[in-house]
Amino acid sequence: MLEPQNWSAADAATRRAMLQRPESTDTAGAAAREIVDAIYAGGEAAVRDYADRLDGYAPADFRVDAAAIAAARAGLDEADAEAILAAADAVRRFHVRQGYGSYSVETWPGVTASRRATPVDVVALYVPAGSAPLVSTLIMLAIPAQLAGVPRIVIVAPPAGPQGVDPVLLAAASLLGLDEVYAIGGAQAVAALATGSAGLPRADKIFGPGNAWVAAAKAYVASLPGGPAVDLPAGPSEVMVIADANADAAFVASDLLSQAEHDPSAQVMLVCFDAATRERIAAEVETQLMGLPRADIARQAMRHSRTILCESLDQAADIANAYAPEHLILQLGEAEALVRRVRHAGSIFVGAWAPEAAGDYAAGPNHTLPTGGAARAHGGVTVEAFQKTTTILRASKAGAAAMAPTVERLAALEGLAGHATAMRLRREWAQAWPDDVSGPRLRTSARRRKTKETDITVFVDLDRDGPSAISTGIGYFDHMLDQIARHAGIAVNIDASGDLEIDAHHTIEDVCLTLGEALHEALGDKRGIARFGFELPMDETRAGVWIDLSGRPFAKFEGEIPGERVGEFPVEMVPHAFRSLAESMKAAIHVRVEGENAHHMVEGSFKAFGRALRQAVRIESERLPSTKEFLE
Amino acid sequence: MLEPQNWSAADAATRRAMLQRPESTDTAGAAAREIVDAIYAGGEAAVRDYADRLDGYAPADFRVDAAAIAAARAGLDEADAEAILAAADAVRRFHVRQGYGSYSVETWPGVTASRRATPVDVVALYVPAGSAPLVSTLIMLAIPAQLAGVPRIVIVAPPAGPQGVDPVLLAAASLLGLDEVYAIGGAQAVAALATGSAGLPRADKIFGPGNAWVAAAKAYVASLPGGPAVDLPAGPSEVMVIADANADAAFVASDLLSQAEHDPSAQVMLVCFDAATRERIAAEVETQLMGLPRADIARQAMRHSRTILCESLDQAADIANAYAPEHLILQLGEAEALVRRVRHAGSIFVGAWAPEAAGDYAAGPNHTLPTGGAARAHGGVTVEAFQKTTTILRASKAGAAAMAPTVERLAALEGLAGHATAMRLRREWAQAWPDDVSGPRLRTSARRRKTKETDITVFVDLDRDGPSAISTGIGYFDHMLDQIARHAGIAVNIDASGDLEIDAHHTIEDVCLTLGEALHEALGDKRGIARFGFELPMDETRAGVWIDLSGRPFAKFEGEIPGERVGEFPVEMVPHAFRSLAESMKAAIHVRVEGENAHHMVEGSFKAFGRALRQAVRIESERLPSTKEFLE
Repeated sequence: MLEPQNWSAADAATRRAMLQRPESTDTAGAAAREIVDAIYAGGEAAVRDYADRLDGYAPADFRVDAAAIAAARAGLDEADAEAILAAADAVRRFHVRQGYGSYSVETWPGVTASRRATPVDVVALYVPAGSAPLVSTLIMLAIPAQLAGVPRIVIVAPPAGPQGVDPVLLAAASLLGLDEVYAIGGAQAVAALATGSAGLPRADKIFGPGNAWVAAAKAYVASLPGGPAVDLPAGPSEVMVIADANADAAFVASDLLSQAEHDPSAQVMLVCFDAATRERIAAEVETQLMGLPRADIARQAMRHSRTILCESLDQAADIANAYAPEHLILQLGEAEALVRRVRHAGSIFVGAWAPEAAGDYAAGPNHTLPTGGAARAHGGVTVEAFQKTTTILRASKAGAAAMAPTVERLAALEGLAGHATAMRLRREWAQAWPDDVSGPRLRTSARRRKTKETDITVFVDLDRDGPSAISTGIGYFDHMLDQIARHAGIAVNIDASGDLEIDAHHTIEDVCLTLGEALHEALGDKRGIARFGFELPMDETRAGVWIDLSGRPFAKFEGEIPGERVGEFPVEMVPHAFRSLAESMKAAIHVRVEGENAHHMVEGSFKAFGRALRQAVRIESERLPSTKEFLE
Repeated sequence: MLEPQNWSAADAATRRAMLQRPESTDTAGAAAREIVDAIYAGGEAAVRDYADRLDGYAPADFRVDAAAIAAARAGLDEADAEAILAAADAVRRFHVRQGYGSYSVETWPGVTASRRATPVDVVALYVPAGSAPLVSTLIMLAIPAQLAGVPRIVIVAPPAGPQGVDPVLLAAASLLGLDEVYAIGGAQAVAALATGSAGLPRADKIFGPGNAWVAAAKAYVASLPGGPAVDLPAGPSEVMVIADANADAAFVASDLLSQAEHDPSAQVMLVCFDAATRERIAAEVETQLMGLPRADIARQAMRHSRTILCESLDQAADIANAYAPEHLILQLGEAEALVRRVRHAGSIFVGAWAPEAAGDYAAGPNHTLPTGGAARAHGGVTVEAFQKTTTILRASKAGAAAMAPTVERLAALEGLAGHATAMRLRREWAQAWPDDVSGPRLRTSARRRKTKETDITVFVDLDRDGPSAISTGIGYFDHMLDQIARHAGIAVNIDASGDLEIDAHHTIEDVCLTLGEALHEALGDKRGIARFGFELPMDETRAGVWIDLSGRPFAKFEGEIPGERVGEFPVEMVPHAFRSLAESMKAAIHVRVEGENAHHMVEGSFKAFGRALRQAVRIESERLPSTKEFLE
């Protein structure tokens, strides 16, 4: 047990052999496929036949009735209930940060591409019957499913006892708010879920470990046309512990054994830097084995354990990366350096105080992890695993026209003329059709305001970060408007001609009114925008702007700007400009500015307005601002 | 062609039949598995044998040499190059927002659980040879792989022409910065990648569509022990178009045909609300077919197309959800209402101006999408598909002790005594060991300050959102400190006893000094924190606080609070409190408050401080604040 092999001295083939996982024999695979095929062909009768033959349990209804669940809950020791809830809470605290991001991007001018994450409709959680009800497996699968918002979560578990399923497991389900439990296991449970037979729902995705039959059946149904998705390729559990001379031998031994006691086929790998450490640990293993109820199982697993002696952190990292362990425990001084260098591992336990046992039950991260080297391409079960994404494309006529040359060219290159036609028709017709033909909502607006004093056109696009083109005939005002666009992260085109021979008043006022109207129009139904914005950049000048896009116009300006003009821009027009904007945007705008230098104070006000606007118009969700934010 | 069936009149079985996908025959499956098995057994010789037999191409080196790629790039039409780059840019703009989130959470006091996303090491992109080089497939796979940071991206493509691979595809690879291309296709390519034979690297994950043999080989190698991961279950492409009476018939017809021209087995579904719309569209399909080079293929596909007449938006949504189409095109007035109701679809194209052709090539979203109803549980290819997650657990001694009762209880419940031992050893020894044994960094601090005037203990935890326990003997001050904790979203325990018989001054001052020290200590090296915080809640009172945690203490208080006391709290102590905090936190703190009611003004100041602190201490990345944010 724990006989060491030397990494440095070994050639590549020997190194591969050191890290080889135990051979798995595929007798279960063929048997499982046979069961699945029989159930695909024979439906309910075949399910009952196998359930009866293999488990001796084929009741009229595989579903555990509500009374049995309630009774199991009532019979649960309260300390056990507390432990289950405490573990579930920690798992929830960790997983709540997960989930696919939903977002929208303007990929071409006028083309908005979105991604939306939604839960899978029906998921089945397979909870195996080990030596005892695997409550922790239920917690690890149910919590992320619930966080993903899965509307129907069903539990399947091999039959045990008169209630159909072990009462502790039923009680745990009840504590987690789940009430749909079926007493059926093995490949027949998987096939029943894949086909929706024998009273079980057709599952869109099947989660959970199980014995070799279950694993084989899951992989097989997933490979069939229209078959359900499955979580992870499952195999025997495994741990790699990397320990240095300072590692506590009792801790390391307990970690090795808590892996070994799982299953005779569990794999235990120890990596040390010196023989003395190995010996200390091996002695501790022997000692602890004496007190272990499942010592027989652990001894079998320890028999094909491996110990590797290496010489450096780099070698230790190479070994871990080559093995890609499900669990990696780091009990060495330079643990954090290894955390950075290990690229492939399901879960890493850093230092003396984070045993794998904690992760198996209650630390927070999921314990359903990739085995057999699958950590090279897979992580453990996540909230994302209970979700799927849908992409959504929306384009305006202009957007279609913008994409068309690229699409048509590539379609021609691939010889798909029908694709080119579909795009070309849009392009030609976009060019030909009048502008008032409706398209999908875009957060743009084009406004013109023409009076005997001014003639102003304004275009805004709230979802494009420039470039802007601004020309009002008043240089400093152009600069201010550009500050707004730039700091708001939007695109603004303004072309104004006004009676500047009289003064700047009409032009500034009308530009602000038109810009406000355009912003108001572009905001549309305000779906997804933040309702309030504010900002305060620092300088010798301090300027703050607060915006409420609620629809009620109100302007408040606090501050005394010294002097009369900045460039050709009359400072008295600053409050006026914001009043005009507030009025036409139908927004409440508060501005406060203090400072000494008029140039700074004016510029600070407009810049702050831009920054506040950036926040106010940002799409934060697919929802209206008054409702709770949640992914659609 | 497009003969309608009526949804409303149909029973459940008929409805299922309407939505049935064409039967797939699994002749390819057995053949592909045979090839894979032979290559697993025979290695390079078997690869060469199949490559020669099936494609007549088995060179000394399957890899396309650099000169051939350079020549292909040089020979590419510049307009084609521009289109390829423009499409790649749009795809990049969309996908850049994707990727698993990396984060850390304190799941128990003293236990930090993290998730880290890293790229898969070696991915293979299978680019099929259709009627022409499928440049778009390469773009759709290469861009997310690059965004995920995959270090080794290899392309495999069926042999074509003297360069080994079609020069347009080689040129596209070159444009995308990829230079590792192998001229080998079919199941033999998949098996070579799965085993790392015949000069191909062993791929951790294989992406890309292909014919039935490739799809079957991918599914099979993924099911083998230690086999590579694969992207999606692939099947014939399909589209569902939902069109109302206002839909443009030419647009709809072009969308149906651009699906049908892909493949005789492509499935085309049309859902209409009235027969006249169907007739207009059917006539347009006939017209457009006349001009289509691939009309033969399209006619075959249209032969098993289906048209369903339904009566309402609800029915249309039911049909789409039951079918779970790869592509869903919505050409109806209420398109947005349907977007919200459709739960299962790979990609949705909204309105007249967003044809599927655009999505196939250049709109931005991925065109590798779930077929055959897999959209019930899968999304298309994402950046996440090129990543994997690793969870990392770090605990202090106190953290181990905190988790232990729950872990030990659950381990006992599951009969795994070794697990309980691993946890118990930590708990017992954590209780026994001295405090100066190092543990992982936690953003907590415990400080005591004892003078002849006061005795104060403060504990803060920046990563736990309460509960707090505060007792200073000054009721209103407790309330203010609680406001800070609550609004900062942190946990603060304060126990102070001071010379209140004299007055509150010493106690307030010393509590603030100690709290500031604790915050300073808990912030540690400020890894990942935002450097500036500010906040301004509104009320009759307006209070603002700006914090710079830069290490240079400075306090500025602007505001006149009327009266002398709020409860037992002397208002003159408000500026003093912030000065003490600034000093001991080594932070610049600016406070400005205006209003009328002293209670509001004091409370507003502390509340704003809490809010500002919340932003300032929030971990935004794993990096120091001065470096660019990036996932570890």
